[in-house]
Amino acid sequence: MHADRLAACQQRLADSPADAAVFAPGANLTYLTGFETEASERALFLFVTSDAVEFFVPELVEEQVAASTPIDQIRTWRDDETPHKPLSALCADLGLAGDDTRLLIDETMWARFTHLLRDVFPQATVGLATELMAELRIRKGDTELAALRRAAAAADTAMMRLRDRGDDLVGLTESAVATRIETELADAGGESLSFEPIVAAGPHGARPHHTHGDREIRAGEPVVLDFGCRIDGYPSDQTRTVVFGGEPSARFTQGHEIVRRAQRAAIERVEPGVTAGDVDEAARSVIEQAGYGEQFMHRTGHGVGLAVHEEPEISAGNNRRLEPGMVFSVEPGVYCSGEFGVRIEDLVVVTETGCERLNTTPRGWQCE
Amino acid sequence: MHADRLAACQQRLADSPADAAVFAPGANLTYLTGFETEASERALFLFVTSDAVEFFVPELVEEQVAASTPIDQIRTWRDDETPHKPLSALCADLGLAGDDTRLLIDETMWARFTHLLRDVFPQATVGLATELMAELRIRKGDTELAALRRAAAAADTAMMRLRDRGDDLVGLTESAVATRIETELADAGGESLSFEPIVAAGPHGARPHHTHGDREIRAGEPVVLDFGCRIDGYPSDQTRTVVFGGEPSARFTQGHEIVRRAQRAAIERVEPGVTAGDVDEAARSVIEQAGYGEQFMHRTGHGVGLAVHEEPEISAGNNRRLEPGMVFSVEPGVYCSGEFGVRIEDLVVVTETGCERLNTTPRGWQCE
Repeated sequence: MHADRLAACQQRLADSPADAAVFAPGANLTYLTGFETEASERALFLFVTSDAVEFFVPELVEEQVAASTPIDQIRTWRDDETPHKPLSALCADLGLAGDDTRLLIDETMWARFTHLLRDVFPQATVGLATELMAELRIRKGDTELAALRRAAAAADTAMMRLRDRGDDLVGLTESAVATRIETELADAGGESLSFEPIVAAGPHGARPHHTHGDREIRAGEPVVLDFGCRIDGYPSDQTRTVVFGGEPSARFTQGHEIVRRAQRAAIERVEPGVTAGDVDEAARSVIEQAGYGEQFMHRTGHGVGLAVHEEPEISAGNNRRLEPGMVFSVEPGVYCSGEFGVRIEDLVVVTETGCERLNTTPRGWQCE
Repeated sequence: MHADRLAACQQRLADSPADAAVFAPGANLTYLTGFETEASERALFLFVTSDAVEFFVPELVEEQVAASTPIDQIRTWRDDETPHKPLSALCADLGLAGDDTRLLIDETMWARFTHLLRDVFPQATVGLATELMAELRIRKGDTELAALRRAAAAADTAMMRLRDRGDDLVGLTESAVATRIETELADAGGESLSFEPIVAAGPHGARPHHTHGDREIRAGEPVVLDFGCRIDGYPSDQTRTVVFGGEPSARFTQGHEIVRRAQRAAIERVEPGVTAGDVDEAARSVIEQAGYGEQFMHRTGHGVGLAVHEEPEISAGNNRRLEPGMVFSVEPGVYCSGEFGVRIEDLVVVTETGCERLNTTPRGWQCE
């Protein structure tokens, strides 16, 4: 599988004006090689040219890289030297030492390493490998879809267990609920979190990227629950906005209904040939017509794969046409500062004729 | 506290040839402002000049940034536009639009954003803010030390609980033990993991950065246990190499004793005025004299603060002199490919007269 992906990357490089793509630890590197590691202060690159693939790694991970990837060209550097000299030698061997070398680099590469590359290739023209890799990764294969389905099911299981507790969660802090979510996700088979869970109660819900804190959950107060976990490396990401006990305000139930309609409209719009912008528009127009346009200040969704946020962006004006195998979130929201927020999110996969929702829990705010 | 740190950063900028430092999500940004967020595809910068401090953030996190930092200058950009125009306007307002502008950028900034800055500042000279920030962060204050002590104590508690289980862990997979470690760390007060725990049994121990996998732990087999958790944002990081049941090989017990002596020698060397290289040498010479020099292929340690790896590096030839308040790991190891590995690691803080160990569990391999 990884050998095929590397070959596809090499083919695209051969068809492009670039001489090489250079990757650092992150989703692209994992996608191409199967090797997963956190970015650190030690230089670790994967060089891909149209006719060569070579790792440049710290000696202390050499055995691991050799054991977990199909790549047999592994150049190492030692902890008691700087990487400059062996990196220059590698570049010369790969034919990348010329004045007109054109490199594409990984968009998540740290500045520390883009500067190292500039030191070693002072004359090279440097662009980003973003498009090259997005084209490879945007349509998910069967193995990827299977992992995404399992991860989505685990998040759904955790969400249902949480809802089943209903009133019991009133009085707990957001952070205590986040800890329960982590436990539920692990029990459901999650290997790690997709991201720090969002448990945003009452006015905190109006901050789309609030995580969780000391606020206690009150009866009748809406709570935004946005979380997911990884299985076989692939993440889930879903959101429900619920009320654990008591009766919410009429303003909230109205807002919730609008978001629910917007989310349904967007999902109904998904099919091959439709643009990402069309899907955004389907959600946005419902919210605008209800008079909440200003309170929906983010895009409708984002692609999901090895990275929780990747292509395609489901945003206003994006002309990217949807194709079978694309996976993304549909997550409109309404955020009323100082009051509450509502967001409802499912992942969907584009099929030949429409789309399949990966998340299937009830979208209502009621826990019973 | 954050206001003081920002003022110190501004003072250093005033004393340097640079016009501004630009930070992205990560340890430097958290250190300066208290705001913590994961790097994502949306542009988020902190600009610091000698007379101004201003955030540039996605509109959807504005409220959060305002609530959690002392900074009142917050420029936003909307999800339905690209950040270029508002970023250009900010730069002009900060007096950074000139041809001779000199910027220092965060070393963990993604290439995506260094390219965005280059688009907006095509004429600027760009360096790294690494040294500037290392000087600010390298001596820990009392609040930082208190958090580091609590995090170290939590890791020690988890390690003792694990050792107490002794024989019971034989037959479990490395990954199952890693899950237990996560639970123990959470029970001991850990808010999140410092990094994915390392549980490296038998020959896996010879890979310094192996995490964990399906291998079952066998009686008499050494297991490298390297883990830590964060408390109040600060991480712990310690390692013990233990045998859960049965008798290990003579070759392992000999290797373990050598590493133990090396680690003790390095810690005894720590005091103000000594260089980081001296500490490395103290450990390395013990291992070299025992004939295992080639099997110790990494530096002796690394600084620990908001980042698990930061300055000072405890590496061969590093002339950096130790000062009170510096915190780093002392973790020599010996790695015998195909057989086993041994690593023993404590965090230490440099005091006025020597050092204080933050980890205090027994360093032996015996669990009883």
